Amino acid sequence: MSFQNPVFIPGPTNIPESVRKACDMPTLDHRSPAFARIFRPAVEGVRRVLKMDAGEVILLPSTGTGGWEAAITNTLSPGDTVLAARFGMFSHRWIELGHVHGLNVQIIETPWGQGAPLQAIEAALKADANKTGGGTIKAVLATHNETATGVKSDISGIRRAMDAAGHTAMLFVDGVSSIGSMAFQFTGWGVDIAVAGSQKGFMLPAGLAILGVSPKAIEAMETATLPRTFFDFKDMLTSYARGGFPYTPPVGLIAGLAHAIDLLEGEGLENVYARHHRLAEGVRCAIMAWGMTPYAATPDLYSDTITAVKVPAGCDGTALVQLAASKYGVAFGVGLGEVAGKVFRIGHLGMLTDVMVLSGLATAEMCMADLGWPVKLGSGVAAAQDYYRGTVPALALAAE
Amino acid sequence: MSFQNPVFIPGPTNIPESVRKACDMPTLDHRSPAFARIFRPAVEGVRRVLKMDAGEVILLPSTGTGGWEAAITNTLSPGDTVLAARFGMFSHRWIELGHVHGLNVQIIETPWGQGAPLQAIEAALKADANKTGGGTIKAVLATHNETATGVKSDISGIRRAMDAAGHTAMLFVDGVSSIGSMAFQFTGWGVDIAVAGSQKGFMLPAGLAILGVSPKAIEAMETATLPRTFFDFKDMLTSYARGGFPYTPPVGLIAGLAHAIDLLEGEGLENVYARHHRLAEGVRCAIMAWGMTPYAATPDLYSDTITAVKVPAGCDGTALVQLAASKYGVAFGVGLGEVAGKVFRIGHLGMLTDVMVLSGLATAEMCMADLGWPVKLGSGVAAAQDYYRGTVPALALAAE
Amino acid sequence: MSFQNPVFIPGPTNIPESVRKACDMPTLDHRSPAFARIFRPAVEGVRRVLKMDAGEVILLPSTGTGGWEAAITNTLSPGDTVLAARFGMFSHRWIELGHVHGLNVQIIETPWGQGAPLQAIEAALKADANKTGGGTIKAVLATHNETATGVKSDISGIRRAMDAAGHTAMLFVDGVSSIGSMAFQFTGWGVDIAVAGSQKGFMLPAGLAILGVSPKAIEAMETATLPRTFFDFKDMLTSYARGGFPYTPPVGLIAGLAHAIDLLEGEGLENVYARHHRLAEGVRCAIMAWGMTPYAATPDLYSDTITAVKVPAGCDGTALVQLAASKYGVAFGVGLGEVAGKVFRIGHLGMLTDVMVLSGLATAEMCMADLGWPVKLGSGVAAAQDYYRGTVPALALAAE
Amino acid sequence: MSFQNPVFIPGPTNIPESVRKACDMPTLDHRSPAFARIFRPAVEGVRRVLKMDAGEVILLPSTGTGGWEAAITNTLSPGDTVLAARFGMFSHRWIELGHVHGLNVQIIETPWGQGAPLQAIEAALKADANKTGGGTIKAVLATHNETATGVKSDISGIRRAMDAAGHTAMLFVDGVSSIGSMAFQFTGWGVDIAVAGSQKGFMLPAGLAILGVSPKAIEAMETATLPRTFFDFKDMLTSYARGGFPYTPPVGLIAGLAHAIDLLEGEGLENVYARHHRLAEGVRCAIMAWGMTPYAATPDLYSDTITAVKVPAGCDGTALVQLAASKYGVAFGVGLGEVAGKVFRIGHLGMLTDVMVLSGLATAEMCMADLGWPVKLGSGVAAAQDYYRGTVPALALAAE
Repeated sequence: MSFQNPVFIPGPTNIPESVRKACDMPTLDHRSPAFARIFRPAVEGVRRVLKMDAGEVILLPSTGTGGWEAAITNTLSPGDTVLAARFGMFSHRWIELGHVHGLNVQIIETPWGQGAPLQAIEAALKADANKTGGGTIKAVLATHNETATGVKSDISGIRRAMDAAGHTAMLFVDGVSSIGSMAFQFTGWGVDIAVAGSQKGFMLPAGLAILGVSPKAIEAMETATLPRTFFDFKDMLTSYARGGFPYTPPVGLIAGLAHAIDLLEGEGLENVYARHHRLAEGVRCAIMAWGMTPYAATPDLYSDTITAVKVPAGCDGTALVQLAASKYGVAFGVGLGEVAGKVFRIGHLGMLTDVMVLSGLATAEMCMADLGWPVKLGSGVAAAQDYYRGTVPALALAAE
Repeated sequence: MSFQNPVFIPGPTNIPESVRKACDMPTLDHRSPAFARIFRPAVEGVRRVLKMDAGEVILLPSTGTGGWEAAITNTLSPGDTVLAARFGMFSHRWIELGHVHGLNVQIIETPWGQGAPLQAIEAALKADANKTGGGTIKAVLATHNETATGVKSDISGIRRAMDAAGHTAMLFVDGVSSIGSMAFQFTGWGVDIAVAGSQKGFMLPAGLAILGVSPKAIEAMETATLPRTFFDFKDMLTSYARGGFPYTPPVGLIAGLAHAIDLLEGEGLENVYARHHRLAEGVRCAIMAWGMTPYAATPDLYSDTITAVKVPAGCDGTALVQLAASKYGVAFGVGLGEVAGKVFRIGHLGMLTDVMVLSGLATAEMCMADLGWPVKLGSGVAAAQDYYRGTVPALALAAE
Repeated sequence: MSFQNPVFIPGPTNIPESVRKACDMPTLDHRSPAFARIFRPAVEGVRRVLKMDAGEVILLPSTGTGGWEAAITNTLSPGDTVLAARFGMFSHRWIELGHVHGLNVQIIETPWGQGAPLQAIEAALKADANKTGGGTIKAVLATHNETATGVKSDISGIRRAMDAAGHTAMLFVDGVSSIGSMAFQFTGWGVDIAVAGSQKGFMLPAGLAILGVSPKAIEAMETATLPRTFFDFKDMLTSYARGGFPYTPPVGLIAGLAHAIDLLEGEGLENVYARHHRLAEGVRCAIMAWGMTPYAATPDLYSDTITAVKVPAGCDGTALVQLAASKYGVAFGVGLGEVAGKVFRIGHLGMLTDVMVLSGLATAEMCMADLGWPVKLGSGVAAAQDYYRGTVPALALAAE
Repeated sequence: MSFQNPVFIPGPTNIPESVRKACDMPTLDHRSPAFARIFRPAVEGVRRVLKMDAGEVILLPSTGTGGWEAAITNTLSPGDTVLAARFGMFSHRWIELGHVHGLNVQIIETPWGQGAPLQAIEAALKADANKTGGGTIKAVLATHNETATGVKSDISGIRRAMDAAGHTAMLFVDGVSSIGSMAFQFTGWGVDIAVAGSQKGFMLPAGLAILGVSPKAIEAMETATLPRTFFDFKDMLTSYARGGFPYTPPVGLIAGLAHAIDLLEGEGLENVYARHHRLAEGVRCAIMAWGMTPYAATPDLYSDTITAVKVPAGCDGTALVQLAASKYGVAFGVGLGEVAGKVFRIGHLGMLTDVMVLSGLATAEMCMADLGWPVKLGSGVAAAQDYYRGTVPALALAAE
């Protein structure tokens, strides 16, 4: 376990030096005013990253899964109907979570590799709205970036579909693998709950679910009867108002979150998103040079944080991931569920440089050669080099 | 925020240097075999600390509160009856959590300062067992160490009461502020679920609930209908069996847990408990020298991890805590709930030395003098010095 | 080796959390402009701490001993005469270093416990100045704070003595255990070379000698024939001018130095000196309460960074130091040279709080009781508590 | 300053995670037995790395330059004659240091790119040995690995030349950029002083010169009259014998040294050397693929730690280094002295992986393309990939 090579998993991401130091904090009395001085900037920073004009930020000592659960248990009651499209492992898991909590999940089955089907969503909402007695769908569950397939969905389009249907359901968005790395507009897109995790775009260790909650979702909390204690928004907001936390908070992670947002804003959020786009484009250049394609069906669906690479017929993506780990000490992601073996995944989110990405691509090529895949060594690297060297932003050139 | 003085809150505790380094880990692929090499020793270590002969250890990215919730939601169904005594803020909170989750909590009200009332528990269980149609109590909720009052309860005695009543309820124990610092016997005491937190005796940052679960509790999981996903034991155990985790785990905390247990076992668990007893006795010597007493009603109830100091009439414990923080940069605990103002609390758990405790006592004395309390400077320190210097274990003397 | 208790040695001192993080730096190309961005603030900060209006700051990867050597080899030639008073182990060592390097050291023997003898120095300089053919003394070696005896000398007074004698010798000052903790005026006192070390008032690990060098001393460098390479000022200044270093510099220590000076200036240098005075006064209150005295002969000589405590007749200071380490895990300093056994030394410099000092005093008392010294437990602590609680600066009270 | 990319300078090298943690140590009383428990394993480890059967290891808080100076000042007297070949910047600097210290340096001028000229050395020694009155050469200064040109010299051959000449001069070896990364045999090669630095093969921050000293060199110390205090071997050895240090040691660096040697020995010294050879071979494959050559004149001279790449006519190696730093955030080494501009240098020593080296090569290629050099993107990377993937040791494959 040498920690020398970067990781290229779809999260957790490589933690920047200064973020590690910010998280590594001695014990602090979380009931003292010192805690509020750490907590408030973190909360305010999240608000800016999410682009929230109204509503509340909630930090749960948990992960994205806990964030999904909290979104549901704080706003819904057993038997409530929610609408969700299934097109990958993570959209699937959220649906399963709804089932476990007794929701009636109306599922729009969608091929993996596709994103959220806007027309089908609009149709389902219209049908619901036109029901005798009014609509029953309480919330739409949307996966902004499907980590399993490297597919980005159009959340703004879902909002437009909801508006077109004249439906008043809430919009819950899983932004775990997008927020902090890809543009997100909580207020602009009419999101009611956004769920992020500390270990992706925020470049922190796992341990925090980061939520934005709209006034409408907060109001829903008053009538929701699903049980919750650890994830209870009301306890959170009551404590936050006093500068506290309802139980012992992970102070180091919260301090790290504030610092990570300082890094993001120091680079400039738009620059961060542009950097992720560049990194992703370079990866895609390499993939094309290998004669392969992203699993995402069309370019508009390409994720800028994760690429699932469709492997040639007869090749096993999982074998590549295992070989990269065992022979070269480099971590990629395997295909999950119905794309197991058919893809391998390259995570290119968080604090990455062109140079780091090139080392990942070079490693993938060596594995391909080792496995007898029909790929020329250096071909993908060269394509990415060519793209990167031509697109380094003026900013980076000006700075030293 | 200088971090120079130790903290004397009842947790989180002072984090040892080497534990901080163990937690501060670069990103590791939690789906690789490297994770299992970190995870398994942590789980096995917890098993030894809890003295578990059978059952499973479960680590939840959460806190003690999450551990309580998990204990209930994994084993019980809405409407189930549980028995609990209320004698402090933390026993109260667990009861409230039961209410929120739709349990029927049969409460034995007990004066704060007392511990679990063995006779009343036995009586309640007998009455329940003798009901027509058989007992309805599914679990007894017990607080091993009531953090609010510094009271230790006799868990072994509760088990004896349960056996005497011939009752088959499960025994759930909150050991958040005892486990790792005071003797605990999961199997010996017939515990079904024990809940600990990372930030007390395990000397880690907050962020992990650490649970021991008996085969009986695991079996209960099959029929329990309270909803849970993030805290689901079955998902955990299924993943653990493959060397994995159902979602992204807090790898650094888990590595730190394994290391912290190495420290505890390096010192020797019995020596750790003896050290906590010595530290606590020294604190109690100081309190007596001040003319005060612990809030715990009788010496057999004295906690070795936390002392709630009953303050003289007309004095305000909360004022002392605030002054210690603002004037001297030292953190003590305030009184909570019905003992607010009537006590201040000294946490003496985790990685503490005699010398550190003396600095806390000296600080408390300065605050008392500042507030005009009738206490002689140096009096408590001298009493503790005298006790400590006479009781340093041979081990410490031999080592260098 | 648990690192839990503070150290009370006369250096190295307790390293603040944030200084440790500033020093713990990944590899950086010291030939890149990034190095200059770390180095220049450190150098400019030292200039402000030393209160230098002219001259150069030089940082040597070394210790105070290396700084002494550098001062001599860069400015003097074999056979040159220097004047020095000997009144402790560290003034002695500098004299010995002069001998080794072939200097003619004119020694004014002075009782240990005394400081620099201003009249004798003035007399010696006058005698030298009046010699036929002019004075031969090239430099006066002065020890600002004699670490062995806890004695502060009057450097300003030495300058006045030099001026009164009309002597043009250079003034070299060992400020290793004073600079950063006690007031120092390089320009105001007419100092030609001041030598400090990283591990005392600058609160860093050992590894840097920190020197201020006057224009006059820089000029002396041109004719000095003692050989030097690693410590050569000219190589240093040539490299500095280009933003570089003549060999691989300890970048982390230099970054830490810049940060440590930020801490000192954040607190305010005058406040830092006042804090050290308060801490020292509290220690002296304790000593008096024990019926002992500082080894320094008179109050005007009391050092604010180190107190050598004269132990009662029949007592062995070294035994106390050994017992404190072996039984309580606390480090004090032994007596050196002719005061071996007659004193023990308490270092109270660097980043210390009242509370930390009280823990040291409490430990010393326990050792005294263990050794059968005629001291009442708690007596010194109480005296210091009383002093500290009455003198906490308004600043600390206002801040939180 | 993001610290994300590895550095490829010829030192300091990338510091492994665990070495950084070992160095980052709280304050420890260096006069306590705890220091010896850190110091002795470090010293013994160096002895094993150097393969010393007799003699002493000396650690100086300094750098390689200080180590050179210490070697000379502890064993020689003004006017003594030493023999040295000059074939690069670092052999030049050691010669200059000899001049500064008043030695008579008999220089064998050798073209840069060549190594130590064994025949000329033998001839010079024979001529000296045959002088009337016996030889005057006291020591031969040899540069094992000339960092400026990437040339390895045959130290064993020098010993054979000395033996063939029947000369009794001491053999001093600069192993700063070889020891710890390339095979070294202190006793086997008859070395009298070997000089290493902490920041190269030992993977530590700069701050320690690490010396092996033979019994013969120790004996020379008795008569050597060059002045030294900070670097005095006798003071060192006297203190070491008591488990101490003559002044405040850099304890963290020493702890880090012990740990770094644990890492080297954990991998196996022979495996470490083989890894460096593989890494270097891969770099050389890339260079050949670019149509360039190492600056070292012949393959037997190729260094396994540093490659100076001869750039095509009309190209400027320094421009590449500057562009790599400013555009891509990657550090290479410029050409020094007479090869300024004619080469750029790739450091491939310390804790590097194949994957890291590939990222360096990919960066160099992008710079070449940017500068219009006649190089095909991906060509060098492909050559290195091909070499690396075919030569990964069975050990790495077996381990996971």
